Amino acid sequence: MQAIICFVSDFGLDDTWVGVCHAVIHRACPQARVVDLGHHIPPFDIRKGATTAAAGVYQLPEAIHLVVVDPGVGAGRRDLCIVTAGGTRLVGPDNGVLLPAAWRAGGILEAYALDPLKIDFRGPLATFHARDVLAPAAAALACDVEPSALGEPVDLGSLAEAPFGPCRVENGLVIGEVLEADRFGSMRFNIPGDELARLGLSGSHLEFTIGHSTIRAPLARTYGEVDPGDPVALVDSSGWLSLALNRDNAAERYGVEVGATVRVSTHA
Amino acid sequence: MQAIICFVSDFGLDDTWVGVCHAVIHRACPQARVVDLGHHIPPFDIRKGATTAAAGVYQLPEAIHLVVVDPGVGAGRRDLCIVTAGGTRLVGPDNGVLLPAAWRAGGILEAYALDPLKIDFRGPLATFHARDVLAPAAAALACDVEPSALGEPVDLGSLAEAPFGPCRVENGLVIGEVLEADRFGSMRFNIPGDELARLGLSGSHLEFTIGHSTIRAPLARTYGEVDPGDPVALVDSSGWLSLALNRDNAAERYGVEVGATVRVSTHA
Amino acid sequence: MQAIICFVSDFGLDDTWVGVCHAVIHRACPQARVVDLGHHIPPFDIRKGATTAAAGVYQLPEAIHLVVVDPGVGAGRRDLCIVTAGGTRLVGPDNGVLLPAAWRAGGILEAYALDPLKIDFRGPLATFHARDVLAPAAAALACDVEPSALGEPVDLGSLAEAPFGPCRVENGLVIGEVLEADRFGSMRFNIPGDELARLGLSGSHLEFTIGHSTIRAPLARTYGEVDPGDPVALVDSSGWLSLALNRDNAAERYGVEVGATVRVSTHA
Repeated sequence: MQAIICFVSDFGLDDTWVGVCHAVIHRACPQARVVDLGHHIPPFDIRKGATTAAAGVYQLPEAIHLVVVDPGVGAGRRDLCIVTAGGTRLVGPDNGVLLPAAWRAGGILEAYALDPLKIDFRGPLATFHARDVLAPAAAALACDVEPSALGEPVDLGSLAEAPFGPCRVENGLVIGEVLEADRFGSMRFNIPGDELARLGLSGSHLEFTIGHSTIRAPLARTYGEVDPGDPVALVDSSGWLSLALNRDNAAERYGVEVGATVRVSTHA
Repeated sequence: MQAIICFVSDFGLDDTWVGVCHAVIHRACPQARVVDLGHHIPPFDIRKGATTAAAGVYQLPEAIHLVVVDPGVGAGRRDLCIVTAGGTRLVGPDNGVLLPAAWRAGGILEAYALDPLKIDFRGPLATFHARDVLAPAAAALACDVEPSALGEPVDLGSLAEAPFGPCRVENGLVIGEVLEADRFGSMRFNIPGDELARLGLSGSHLEFTIGHSTIRAPLARTYGEVDPGDPVALVDSSGWLSLALNRDNAAERYGVEVGATVRVSTHA
Repeated sequence: MQAIICFVSDFGLDDTWVGVCHAVIHRACPQARVVDLGHHIPPFDIRKGATTAAAGVYQLPEAIHLVVVDPGVGAGRRDLCIVTAGGTRLVGPDNGVLLPAAWRAGGILEAYALDPLKIDFRGPLATFHARDVLAPAAAALACDVEPSALGEPVDLGSLAEAPFGPCRVENGLVIGEVLEADRFGSMRFNIPGDELARLGLSGSHLEFTIGHSTIRAPLARTYGEVDPGDPVALVDSSGWLSLALNRDNAAERYGVEVGATVRVSTHA
């Protein structure tokens, strides 16, 4: 079976960077398929990169995930290959950007610090690890090289911190944060959709408090279960609990900013 | 020969949606090639989606066309596979978005309502038919599954309406509308370039009336047949009659909005 | 080995043009891989197209480079295949857009005027040479057709001028211009990074004069060799000498415009 490499970056599509990484992978492992999951992460936005990567891993756990958002490129931070308990392989810098994705794929089983000398490429350019270290490492994995062949094992306690943590339960409330708003205005929270029952969110309706807004919404399977313009809670393709308006833009209506705290409870 | 799947959507490229659909297709039918014809359709804009799909079908009638602009996802509307008289296969929601493309490929021969149970995928997510029903259906077609194997036939009279109709002839005028303006400011009308003679537009010059503007332009093969800044009518790659300025932006100069009525006649 | 076709254009991603060219290439040469190096060149901006193509060629000299920025499409200008002294093959219009890339790949060895009759495609549309002449020519090269089989040789003296020239040395100063600012605000100059010594830029620090700003910066391997916010000179992935700020936007801070003159000297 052809390996799929999912590629997330903050490169945008105005420069040659994304295409050059594609070319490097094609050359190193012609049978790999590169799928672009998103390159419009704002420059250096580790938080948004981690959110996008986590959504990708949730949907495509069997793929290899190449994640490049890297304000510290060339400044000595490590490049990693992480293998999760679920078997997902992630490649990216050691700045936390890989961690939420790793949580969603079963947690970290092992991690390796990529060694450019073990990866078949010309001398790496200090400012372009994506091309010279990370993409070649992903290509090697796609061609069945073992992660352990790419570098030395890393002490998991030494990894850089994630840009956001998991949600927590306090006094019966689930306390999380707004990860992002999607193109249609649907807000996503760091509350895994497959853990709602464990977190105590079991009713037919949920109540969300964000800033000064309190929003009650049915927990539905589709937007169309409420009238146009009405709020609806659901687990969308990203696998996170989300809050949307049917055919309208929730993030705009509620003026919500990324990173804002959300409190969620079952509404009697 | 490798099947080509042309993919149009309103997903944008900021989220993982487009890439995930690519991955789903690669996995289901590795020999298929997915070609992105445009994902920047404004959210829920069926009209623009239909215009883009029609341009794609005009140029690549032998490809499979996957078109996802779907305000009613999950609300019970059907997913379709349409086969045209010209043999083109179209996959998308039953909301009219496929119809102008079908007209341009010879008209609808038959249509099937996609049955998720007949398509090899996990339980579909109600909010993401593109991933769970439509893309797998396109992949099945690419791997030589017959359209009739994907679901039950649909009564053609029951299909949802198209977002715009064909042009018409009245008192010697061809009356149509502005479908879109392209990146270079060229305006396209719902007037098929290969039917100009039949519609009575046979002269060397055409006259366009849009709002309060009346524009006379030669019907040319290239922009360069007029002086820079001058208007020129031609049939561009989309196959629609269009009105442009040589090296300038016609849509801006004439302040034309999408959907505006245009009246076209032969200019003596 | 699969040939890689690097594709640069001013088509944007809102229309079907890029995807249609992909489909044409897949159909004509299924084993070719098309890599998108950038389609957000501003409409008709030959200068920016040439800069992007040159960065692509610098990084992927063995690929076939298809470059489409073409204000004069259909107006009689020639389509070219250029072969460089380094063996790189470039396909695009004869308007100068290919020339800086050719310089970076060893200079022009030979050039051919593409003859549509020698390229296996339907009658070309005068306004869409990319689809009907240029992409098919790139596909033919990818499938091992010789450049000389695509058209007649061209007198190199008759080629249209490049949008910018090479830098020059005057009174010990290297005088060049700003080619572009990248997404991260790094400014690139038409000063080849591998010729700094030859141009006399040999010190550990360089001094740049652009407009009224004079900026001194260490010539470093990575952004992180200076404090956040401080200027740093380096040779980035494009292969041009560039001036950046560590984790900040140099183009914005210095208010620099594309095309502005830059004077560079070794700083004692």
